[in-house]
Amino acid sequence: MRTYQVSGGADAPVVPVERPVPVPAAGHLLVRVKAAALNARDRLIVSGTYTAPVPPGRVPLSDGAGVVAAVGDGVTRFRVGDRVLSGFHPDWIHGPFTGWGDLYGVQRDGWLTEYIAVHERSVAAVPDHLSFEEAATLPCAALTAWSAVDGVGPGDTVLVQGSGGVSVFALQFARLAGARVLATSSSPEKAERLRALGASEVVDYVRTPEWGAAVRELADGRGADLIVEIGGAGTVSQSLDALADGGRISLVGNLASGGGLDLTRFFRRGAALRTITVGSRSDLERMNQVIGRHRLRPVIDRVFPFAAAPDAFAYFEKGAGMGKVVISL
Amino acid sequence: MRTYQVSGGADAPVVPVERPVPVPAAGHLLVRVKAAALNARDRLIVSGTYTAPVPPGRVPLSDGAGVVAAVGDGVTRFRVGDRVLSGFHPDWIHGPFTGWGDLYGVQRDGWLTEYIAVHERSVAAVPDHLSFEEAATLPCAALTAWSAVDGVGPGDTVLVQGSGGVSVFALQFARLAGARVLATSSSPEKAERLRALGASEVVDYVRTPEWGAAVRELADGRGADLIVEIGGAGTVSQSLDALADGGRISLVGNLASGGGLDLTRFFRRGAALRTITVGSRSDLERMNQVIGRHRLRPVIDRVFPFAAAPDAFAYFEKGAGMGKVVISL
Amino acid sequence: MRTYQVSGGADAPVVPVERPVPVPAAGHLLVRVKAAALNARDRLIVSGTYTAPVPPGRVPLSDGAGVVAAVGDGVTRFRVGDRVLSGFHPDWIHGPFTGWGDLYGVQRDGWLTEYIAVHERSVAAVPDHLSFEEAATLPCAALTAWSAVDGVGPGDTVLVQGSGGVSVFALQFARLAGARVLATSSSPEKAERLRALGASEVVDYVRTPEWGAAVRELADGRGADLIVEIGGAGTVSQSLDALADGGRISLVGNLASGGGLDLTRFFRRGAALRTITVGSRSDLERMNQVIGRHRLRPVIDRVFPFAAAPDAFAYFEKGAGMGKVVISL
Amino acid sequence: MRTYQVSGGADAPVVPVERPVPVPAAGHLLVRVKAAALNARDRLIVSGTYTAPVPPGRVPLSDGAGVVAAVGDGVTRFRVGDRVLSGFHPDWIHGPFTGWGDLYGVQRDGWLTEYIAVHERSVAAVPDHLSFEEAATLPCAALTAWSAVDGVGPGDTVLVQGSGGVSVFALQFARLAGARVLATSSSPEKAERLRALGASEVVDYVRTPEWGAAVRELADGRGADLIVEIGGAGTVSQSLDALADGGRISLVGNLASGGGLDLTRFFRRGAALRTITVGSRSDLERMNQVIGRHRLRPVIDRVFPFAAAPDAFAYFEKGAGMGKVVISL
Repeated sequence: MRTYQVSGGADAPVVPVERPVPVPAAGHLLVRVKAAALNARDRLIVSGTYTAPVPPGRVPLSDGAGVVAAVGDGVTRFRVGDRVLSGFHPDWIHGPFTGWGDLYGVQRDGWLTEYIAVHERSVAAVPDHLSFEEAATLPCAALTAWSAVDGVGPGDTVLVQGSGGVSVFALQFARLAGARVLATSSSPEKAERLRALGASEVVDYVRTPEWGAAVRELADGRGADLIVEIGGAGTVSQSLDALADGGRISLVGNLASGGGLDLTRFFRRGAALRTITVGSRSDLERMNQVIGRHRLRPVIDRVFPFAAAPDAFAYFEKGAGMGKVVISL
Repeated sequence: MRTYQVSGGADAPVVPVERPVPVPAAGHLLVRVKAAALNARDRLIVSGTYTAPVPPGRVPLSDGAGVVAAVGDGVTRFRVGDRVLSGFHPDWIHGPFTGWGDLYGVQRDGWLTEYIAVHERSVAAVPDHLSFEEAATLPCAALTAWSAVDGVGPGDTVLVQGSGGVSVFALQFARLAGARVLATSSSPEKAERLRALGASEVVDYVRTPEWGAAVRELADGRGADLIVEIGGAGTVSQSLDALADGGRISLVGNLASGGGLDLTRFFRRGAALRTITVGSRSDLERMNQVIGRHRLRPVIDRVFPFAAAPDAFAYFEKGAGMGKVVISL
Repeated sequence: MRTYQVSGGADAPVVPVERPVPVPAAGHLLVRVKAAALNARDRLIVSGTYTAPVPPGRVPLSDGAGVVAAVGDGVTRFRVGDRVLSGFHPDWIHGPFTGWGDLYGVQRDGWLTEYIAVHERSVAAVPDHLSFEEAATLPCAALTAWSAVDGVGPGDTVLVQGSGGVSVFALQFARLAGARVLATSSSPEKAERLRALGASEVVDYVRTPEWGAAVRELADGRGADLIVEIGGAGTVSQSLDALADGGRISLVGNLASGGGLDLTRFFRRGAALRTITVGSRSDLERMNQVIGRHRLRPVIDRVFPFAAAPDAFAYFEKGAGMGKVVISL
Repeated sequence: MRTYQVSGGADAPVVPVERPVPVPAAGHLLVRVKAAALNARDRLIVSGTYTAPVPPGRVPLSDGAGVVAAVGDGVTRFRVGDRVLSGFHPDWIHGPFTGWGDLYGVQRDGWLTEYIAVHERSVAAVPDHLSFEEAATLPCAALTAWSAVDGVGPGDTVLVQGSGGVSVFALQFARLAGARVLATSSSPEKAERLRALGASEVVDYVRTPEWGAAVRELADGRGADLIVEIGGAGTVSQSLDALADGGRISLVGNLASGGGLDLTRFFRRGAALRTITVGSRSDLERMNQVIGRHRLRPVIDRVFPFAAAPDAFAYFEKGAGMGKVVISL
């Protein structure tokens, strides 16, 4: 079968190789991968800047969807022909987070491959109304967004930053739950699309570098109840301005390097900060039920064919689009 | 009547003055103050280093207890002779935190005085088994601790830092709820007393500067589920070492200056951080019910007579004791 | 001023009398009532069948809205000219339910009068976009519905029974929070209107006496996650059929006499049952914020002039309409 | 191997038979059973009065503990030699209750046998400090009690009824969490033992048939916050007297036949009623952690040897003891 692995070299982020199709052990499924999707962490993995060491030859990507092609002994949850998608944490099935564990693309091979063998407990069913390309966007970005806005309702104002995969899903999920959503964006076109997805107001963070105060003003002068924090140290200072007294911040990544959180300002705001660790498979299934119920459609920026996987990484690196970048097999 | 106000000068933190006994307006009580207690914020208030400006002549101290000496028109919650204690937030009666508002010792006169007129909604009844000196310790330190360990139970391991007022109350409340409690201390004598109050283990943070790793080890090698963070930027780095993956930190003060929270380490720990904003009067009453039910006794370090109030501030400044410093009238 | 009181006689449910305009005591407001609304309990009160004794001459109705005409000493929450509405429980301000206490129309005079003096803590501000007639529908029916569907979200299926005041509000609030709503009705016209308000499906409980099974089928064959139970003993048997395993029932009234709940069937369903005790003033204010945010409009069946108050009771007794019956002053 | 199955006849509740030792399929464990325990439902199963049909030859008992004797292909959670105990619901691993499913002793063979083959996901590890006899008491009774008192804390008053397995565990768990516990009992000796386990007060329900009022009085005249309801229709009327306004009842069984719940009294009490469906394996593991942490010891009434299993049923039928009846292999 055809598989991509991290190159470790400068020319391309990933290189194609031939590997034998794996045989599913007891309790495992062989999945014919039909689509995979990119996330911010994949940039770090292929560029050698991830916080944990990535061994040479590792297959990247945590997010994929496909068809069960064969089942090992004792499999009960799925049958050949079922459509499944990956859980971001292959070993976190339910209950509270207790550590990052082994992850695809780092400690184990990921989904940028024609076939993958995974334990049946590590995957979930694909919602009926979704294509494989759409389903592949869910494991990391959608579940992160789902967990980040957990518990919001019709009385809440939520701020999402930009129009990357997590932010767009957070906007969609918060709207489903009746919350008011504000967004930041640097592009009038994206702002327009965010409004079409349900954002009440969009603040241009380039033209308004002090966007925290602007958001606060739009949020009844009181500030947002919940902020889905994408930028980490790079943006959290503005977020503290945008946040309501007693508000909370969901920390979904820490992309910017350097700096930290000013605890004095945090304390004076009476704020709360919660790391979003994606979610368990049980969380994934609950999210999928809601996605299915509401026939929610993921926003896909662009789909690349499997043969052009390196181009997908290059395109994603520029970060110009809105929503998810997907590779189709 | 005799009252103390902030001196603004170098000689003494507070100076006595004579003021007329106030007359309670409609809805207000006149309270004959019988005891008042000191908290970390009072050090900043009398030394002119508090984050908000303190006008000259301000009467300090948020925490006091006394007897209702007279009632204004329309008072229904209390009668003359009732024993009452102050709520830290005079205007936060119930519901979630929505801002710090006007506070005693800063925007309004506090409890270091023979008589104070307060709205009946701003105070709570003193638990029957407590003296006024004990009751005066509750409004800020006990309620902060109560809120900080909210929700812990028999499955949790809690870490408290040192043996100041908040830490000792947090130890007591966490033990009441069945949690396992670890503590840090620099003194063998205090460590002994913390153990007597129910701490399972005490780590000497002077002899073990990397106390975070030591706590982690004692907490089943997994780390504490909840840390009551007193030191803020000064200790939070060790706290991140001591914390379990997915654990939470209650931020009850930010006494140390400089520095901040490393968001990358925070994220990798899957941590949550929550500002403890003391609590509403409704929270105070619930805490008092539990204190009454379990006949919990506050730990008092030392009681000073009213005439020696400046000595109480000087003693508290040194921070050598365990539990609360109280002034008795 | 003109006031209605319970007649105790057979001719009319309420009779007009003249009374002096009350003078607001300290902490109290004098409210010029502009509208009042009827609830199921008012039928029992005026007909002498309420569970607690109603003294002769009692002024009925818990629900009203009006303008502050004068304020007593020490009032701080409102000013003359402010628009206010009643809290159903005049003395339940915040925190959990601890008993029914003194209620309008039973232990104290209610809102079917030109002027009423109430403590400032017993009322809440009227949402800006609502008329007095609309505001008067909120204290009992809307808050009951709000509490009954508390916590539902985009993954839940909710069943409401019929098209009375509580049921229509429950439909509206559940839809705001993203839930799927099913309803029962005996009238095709009402069914149409319930669908227009967001009900996915409406079951005709006259043509389908076994509507429980029909609802179960519509709810993915699994049953409703939450049922807002209006009929009590009269309908709860069908509700147990309609309920999902592990589902919950909000008990908002027990209008039908006789019978009870079959605990064996309840147990086998793994069900939960919760009395809805309307809510505190704090709950009312939170609901009002959401109503204001979403500019939700109460559904009013019919408005009667003050002079025709007895007709309003007679009309309400027939229960033919959809939504609330209001009296305008 | 030696196994007991339901006799279906009048002479004995269970009869011994010889069966081949099962071979564990993929994902399954072969467990050498070392102890099993009886629950109220087992009486119904062996007497043919259970609510679902029990096929002839069914092996009874949901609760057992033993040693892993062999593992099937693909097993990852346990190894040969591990000590395990059964989960009451073999297929409910995590998440909310969604139906009773297939249960031991009814739809599938149970634990009153020398060897049983079960899926590795259906069992949990035995806490280190417990014997097999003690461990066998946990799956149904302890987890039911754990779920029944979920969320109680130092401010709550809990009532347990009698001294059966669930009641004694509920007393122990509620005490661990700091709650005050009241109990009912008909025997002075048992009352003494309940007090030794931490009950504050014990009411004799034989000498005080109106024990509801007595409990209410003991609970500060206010009533219990939570009642662990064992008797169902037979006792729930007294429970409504014993309950605080706004209190909740955990329904753990409905042993008494006939009658039902008076919804009018329930409503006036502002009560909540929740079916306790034992719990998932995830709940079981969390409970076991706490049992291990606090080295809690189950109260065992009497242990019978495997050969005397019918005597155990006969003894249990009389219900004279306190705590659990166990069969040791």
